[in-house]
Amino acid sequence: MIKHLRSAADLDAETATLILDTAAEMASLSGREVKKLPALRGRTVVNLFYEDSTRTRISFEAAAKRLSADVINFSAKGSSVSKGESLKDTALTLQAMGADAVVIRHSASGAPHRLAGWVDGSVVNAGDGTHEHPTQALLDAYTMRSRLGRLDGLKVAIVGDVLHSRVARSNVLLLTTLGAQVTLVGPPTLIPLDVAAALAEKTQVCYDLDAVLPDSDVVMMLRVQTERMQDSYFPSAREYSRRYGLDAPRLHKMPGHAIVMHPGPMNRGMEIAPEVADSPRSTIVEQVANGVSVRMAVLYLLLGGK
Amino acid sequence: MIKHLRSAADLDAETATLILDTAAEMASLSGREVKKLPALRGRTVVNLFYEDSTRTRISFEAAAKRLSADVINFSAKGSSVSKGESLKDTALTLQAMGADAVVIRHSASGAPHRLAGWVDGSVVNAGDGTHEHPTQALLDAYTMRSRLGRLDGLKVAIVGDVLHSRVARSNVLLLTTLGAQVTLVGPPTLIPLDVAAALAEKTQVCYDLDAVLPDSDVVMMLRVQTERMQDSYFPSAREYSRRYGLDAPRLHKMPGHAIVMHPGPMNRGMEIAPEVADSPRSTIVEQVANGVSVRMAVLYLLLGGK
Amino acid sequence: MIKHLRSAADLDAETATLILDTAAEMASLSGREVKKLPALRGRTVVNLFYEDSTRTRISFEAAAKRLSADVINFSAKGSSVSKGESLKDTALTLQAMGADAVVIRHSASGAPHRLAGWVDGSVVNAGDGTHEHPTQALLDAYTMRSRLGRLDGLKVAIVGDVLHSRVARSNVLLLTTLGAQVTLVGPPTLIPLDVAAALAEKTQVCYDLDAVLPDSDVVMMLRVQTERMQDSYFPSAREYSRRYGLDAPRLHKMPGHAIVMHPGPMNRGMEIAPEVADSPRSTIVEQVANGVSVRMAVLYLLLGGK
Repeated sequence: MIKHLRSAADLDAETATLILDTAAEMASLSGREVKKLPALRGRTVVNLFYEDSTRTRISFEAAAKRLSADVINFSAKGSSVSKGESLKDTALTLQAMGADAVVIRHSASGAPHRLAGWVDGSVVNAGDGTHEHPTQALLDAYTMRSRLGRLDGLKVAIVGDVLHSRVARSNVLLLTTLGAQVTLVGPPTLIPLDVAAALAEKTQVCYDLDAVLPDSDVVMMLRVQTERMQDSYFPSAREYSRRYGLDAPRLHKMPGHAIVMHPGPMNRGMEIAPEVADSPRSTIVEQVANGVSVRMAVLYLLLGGK
Repeated sequence: MIKHLRSAADLDAETATLILDTAAEMASLSGREVKKLPALRGRTVVNLFYEDSTRTRISFEAAAKRLSADVINFSAKGSSVSKGESLKDTALTLQAMGADAVVIRHSASGAPHRLAGWVDGSVVNAGDGTHEHPTQALLDAYTMRSRLGRLDGLKVAIVGDVLHSRVARSNVLLLTTLGAQVTLVGPPTLIPLDVAAALAEKTQVCYDLDAVLPDSDVVMMLRVQTERMQDSYFPSAREYSRRYGLDAPRLHKMPGHAIVMHPGPMNRGMEIAPEVADSPRSTIVEQVANGVSVRMAVLYLLLGGK
Repeated sequence: MIKHLRSAADLDAETATLILDTAAEMASLSGREVKKLPALRGRTVVNLFYEDSTRTRISFEAAAKRLSADVINFSAKGSSVSKGESLKDTALTLQAMGADAVVIRHSASGAPHRLAGWVDGSVVNAGDGTHEHPTQALLDAYTMRSRLGRLDGLKVAIVGDVLHSRVARSNVLLLTTLGAQVTLVGPPTLIPLDVAAALAEKTQVCYDLDAVLPDSDVVMMLRVQTERMQDSYFPSAREYSRRYGLDAPRLHKMPGHAIVMHPGPMNRGMEIAPEVADSPRSTIVEQVANGVSVRMAVLYLLLGGK
C-alpha cells in the first residue's frame, strides 16, 4: 500500500481499485447496523486546514471518527501561522505530537509533497491550490462505478473552469488510470492550449458542450468560482451560463442512462439549473455520502488499520 | 415521541413532562459516579451554528458527549456558506454524511423548520432569529420545577425586551402548556399591542414591574441586547435600568419563596444588579447546569436512545 | 498533590519532580504500543482560550485525548464574551457544566488565579499575559533533564525579550526551584533594573551573549515578538539579530554537550539561524513532543487519575 495520498498520480489502477472496493465495504458496514468501527482506535488524525473548507473537513472528521480515531482540528486561520510560523515548523510540531495522519488543505500547490518530507505519518491531500484534490476524484470514481457499474471505457465530460480546477486535474489523472475516456469542455480561455497539450495524450478537448452531451455517460459540472468571474478568462455570467450551464433542455440531450455530477458547493442557476441539480439523474447528494466512505477507506488503508 | 424539536409548540404537556422527568434522571445519573452513558454510542450529532453562541454550543456538545455520541461542530461563519452555499445544500451534505441529529442556530426565523424538510435525522432548534429557543424554555421549566416543586398554577413574570426575545416566546408557549400563568413586563415599545394581542389569551401584559413583583413566584429577567439600545424602541440605558432593572430593593418586594432567573449572558448592573445575580434566590448557575441535563434528555428521546 | 497549576510558584521541588517522573512514564507508555490510556475516561477538560494559540491548544487537546478525557474547545474569540460576558460568568457556566479541568489562555495576567476562585475543577494556566506559562517551563525542564541527565547545578542562559516573556518568568521560578543556575541575557531595555533586582537573588543578568555562551549547559532563545520591534525597548531587527541572535559561530562557542532550546514558533533568521534550529544540538522538536507528555502528567496528577 502507498503511504501518502498527495496526488491522484500516487495511485496505480490496482491501488485505486483497492480503495474503491474498500470504500464499498465501509459503506455497507457503516450503513445501518455498524455505526462505528474500531479499526483506528488510539490513532490520531489531524485536519490541518489553511483554507476554509467546512464540507471537506467534516467529511474527513466523520470518516476518522467512524473508524474510532481521535481527530484534532487545526485551523490555520488566525493561528500561530499568523505569527510567522512556517509550514515546516508546523509540520515538526505535528510530527512531535505523534500524528498518525495529517489531512492538509493549503492554498499553495505542492504543500502536501513538502509536508510528507517532514513527518513520519501519512499525508493526505485535501486540496492544494489549483493543483489536486485526489479524494474528490476517488469519490467521483466511486460514484460513477456504483451508478454505472464500471469505469473502463466510460465517457466522461468535465465542464467548466478546467484551468483553475484541482477537481478536474485529479479526475483526469485518476479516471484515465482506470480506463475512462475524458473530454474537457469549457471556454477556450479556461482550457488553454498548453493545458490541453499536456493532457492531449490522455484526454480530448471540446469547446462546444452541446456537441459532447449526446455521447457522454457522465457529465461533471465544475463549480464556477464567481470571484474569478471578473477575470479576462471569463465570459460574462450570463454568457457563461448560456453556453456552458447545464439546464433541462441540455439534460435531455444526454443518453437515458447518463448521470450528472457536481463536486459542490453549487451555484444553482449559474453552471447548473436547480431542476437538473435535483433530478434523479443527479448524483450530487450521493457524492457527498460516498465521500465519507472513500475517506474512511483511504485513512484505513494508509494507516494500515485492521 | 416527537422527531424534531423546532418549536416549543412541538411539545404537548405529556411530552414536555417526559423530557423534564428524563432530564431529572440524567442529572442524577451523570451526577457523581456515572460520568458517561453509552446511550448514543456510534450516533453523530452535528452542531450547525450560523451564529456565534459558544455557551449553547458547548452545552449541546457536553450533553451529546456524555451520551457517548460523536460530535461534529460546523461553524458556518467563514465556511463554504460564504461561497454561496444554500442552507438546502448544507442540509443535503449533512444528510449524506449520516447525521443522526442536527442542532441548528440560525439568524433566520424558521430555518429549523426548513431544515427538517431536507434531512432524515432529528432537528433541534438552538435558537432561530427572534423566533424560538425551545431547549432554553425546557431548562427554565426544569429549574422552576426543581426549585418550586410544580409548574401548574405558578405565576411567572418575564421582564424586558419581549419583542426581540426568542427566549420569551418559547417560554410563553411551554409554560402555558404546562399550566403556569405568565405575565409579560417591559416598556410598551417592547411589548407592542399586536404581540400583546396575539398572546392575550394565554398571558397578561403589564408595564409596571413593581406592581407585578409581589405576586410572582418566578421573575425571569431577559437579556438587554445593548446593541439595540439605540433603537427608538428603547428608553435610555439609565432609564431602562431604573424602571425595569432588578435590584436589591425590588428583590425584597418579591415573596420569600420566589426565584430570579436569567438566560445569560447577563449585563450586570443593567437589567440585573450584581447582588441580585449572586443571591441565593438566583437560579442562574443552576439554569446552566440544568441546560446540559435537559439537552441530554432531548437528544436521548429524539434519537430513541436506550 | 496540588489542585491547580496557575504558576510555576505552585510547584515545590518534590511536586515538580513528581510531574517530570510521571511525564517520563507517560512518554514511555504512549510511545509505540499503548496509544491511549483510560485514566481520565468520562472526565471533561475544557480548553478556554481567549487568545489564539493553536500549538498550545492542540498539545493540551492531544494530551487529554490520550488519557481518554472528553475535550471541549471554547475559543473565546467571537464568542459570547463579545456580548459582554465576564470571565466570572463564563467560569460559572463551565462550573455548572461539570468541567473537571479548565485550561485557560488569557491576555490578562492573573486570570487563572481569579478563575480558580470560581470553579470546583482544576485550573491550568496555559499562558496569562506576560505573566506565566508553567507547563512550558515544565516541558523545558523535562527536556533538559532527559538530554543532560540532571537539573541541579545546570547553567541555563535565557536570551532575549525577558521583559515580556511569560516563558522566561515561569522558567526562572521552576528552574531555580529545581537547583539550576539561571542567567538572563538581552538588551538592557528588555531586562530592566527592577526586573533584574526582583530576580537578583535567584538569577544573574548579563547583557553580553558571547560572554555567557562558553559557560552554559543550556541556551534558551526566546521568541522575538516582532510586533514589538517598533517599541523603544528594541534595537533594530538587524542590530538585535547581530547582538543576540544565535548563529553557527556562536553555537561553536558553547560547550560540546550544551543544547539549544526555543519555545517556538521561531523567527528563523532573527533570534535563531536556520542551521542552528535544525542542528542536532537543538531540542526544539523534542520540546514539542515532551509538551504532550508533560501535559498528560499534569492533567493526570491534578485530576487524580488512576
